[in-house]
Amino acid sequence: MAIRVDTIDPSRTAVLVVDMQHDFLDPGAAMFARTAQHAVQPIREMLDAARETGMRVFFTVHGHRPDGSDHGMFGGIWPPIAQRSSLVHGTRGTQVVPALAPRDEEPVIAKHRYSAFFGTDLDIQLRQHAVETVVVCGTTTECCCHATARDAMFLDYEVIFLSDATGTFDQPDNGYGAMSAEEVQRSTLVVLANTTGHVMTAAEFVRTARE
Amino acid sequence: MAIRVDTIDPSRTAVLVVDMQHDFLDPGAAMFARTAQHAVQPIREMLDAARETGMRVFFTVHGHRPDGSDHGMFGGIWPPIAQRSSLVHGTRGTQVVPALAPRDEEPVIAKHRYSAFFGTDLDIQLRQHAVETVVVCGTTTECCCHATARDAMFLDYEVIFLSDATGTFDQPDNGYGAMSAEEVQRSTLVVLANTTGHVMTAAEFVRTARE
Repeated sequence: MAIRVDTIDPSRTAVLVVDMQHDFLDPGAAMFARTAQHAVQPIREMLDAARETGMRVFFTVHGHRPDGSDHGMFGGIWPPIAQRSSLVHGTRGTQVVPALAPRDEEPVIAKHRYSAFFGTDLDIQLRQHAVETVVVCGTTTECCCHATARDAMFLDYEVIFLSDATGTFDQPDNGYGAMSAEEVQRSTLVVLANTTGHVMTAAEFVRTARE
Repeated sequence: MAIRVDTIDPSRTAVLVVDMQHDFLDPGAAMFARTAQHAVQPIREMLDAARETGMRVFFTVHGHRPDGSDHGMFGGIWPPIAQRSSLVHGTRGTQVVPALAPRDEEPVIAKHRYSAFFGTDLDIQLRQHAVETVVVCGTTTECCCHATARDAMFLDYEVIFLSDATGTFDQPDNGYGAMSAEEVQRSTLVVLANTTGHVMTAAEFVRTARE
């Protein structure tokens, strides 16, 4: 039970930068994910290598329609979504932070569920380009990144999950104890490394990609 | 961030018993999930109440074709799948254990990915019966139960996840530390309680269902 991706063909590899948007990254934002800021620099370094070696780069942003018609269960779970004060498409909060600005040719996919594959055209685009390996980074580790990695694996993509280019929230105690963002991060990495993909650092990924 | 399901309409509720099959439950099986056995008795009690109150009951079993043509990434992750010694449809290992035997009218859905919704007709069946609330139990907590709960929530079902009617593996150290089944269980419950559904015990569920 050890998942290895030892060689990377950049022409068959796509990087997915998940939800690195103001609503999760800005201190003081209602959905602020405390450790997501730590992921910015590793993602920048990874993106430099991905672009240099010719990988495709995709961004996602999580948001909902201003009328709430795509909330589903999210409204009941996340008060800032129910109140339409966060994660509203068309607002600054759902734009990728400037430090990671997408280039003009890099798609930014608007998603409405944790998984970037659910109800989007991401799979269509990846198959069009014969992508075989998907690299997941961004926020939050255990929700949108985890769900995207799982769906990628279900869809037969080889998955690389970046351990230091992901970050998340502290989780409050809803009956089973609280967990710090660092504890959520580690438990998610353990489970994904055993069940879903090759978990590695951004630097390891850059090294493998340049080999 | 606290997800509550305070009333249950049995006519709109379906119970999903995930992968409680010999390949995960039998001591000595290659895919043996150590704490899944603890889930058997709570599931039995929950099933009694579900059936008495008229809820629909579905079972899933995880397996692959004998020729491996539906392995996808699973072969690379789970040696017993690659070797076709576990999780082969049509073998005893993919039958539900006798202690939880499905009744004739209760569908047993053959699935090939962690999520019971992925590549199956489960959603079609639930919608046919106007199901609104899905109750998830079985094994393994962080893979098949977690993935099924997430997809149910993405598909706009209200999710109840049973804390003591689920169980899992010990996870080896693949670079981020090992975790006992109990640690995996708790971290999964914390994350799901905050992000996906109402996590409760089987006894709490039975009490709410009978109110």
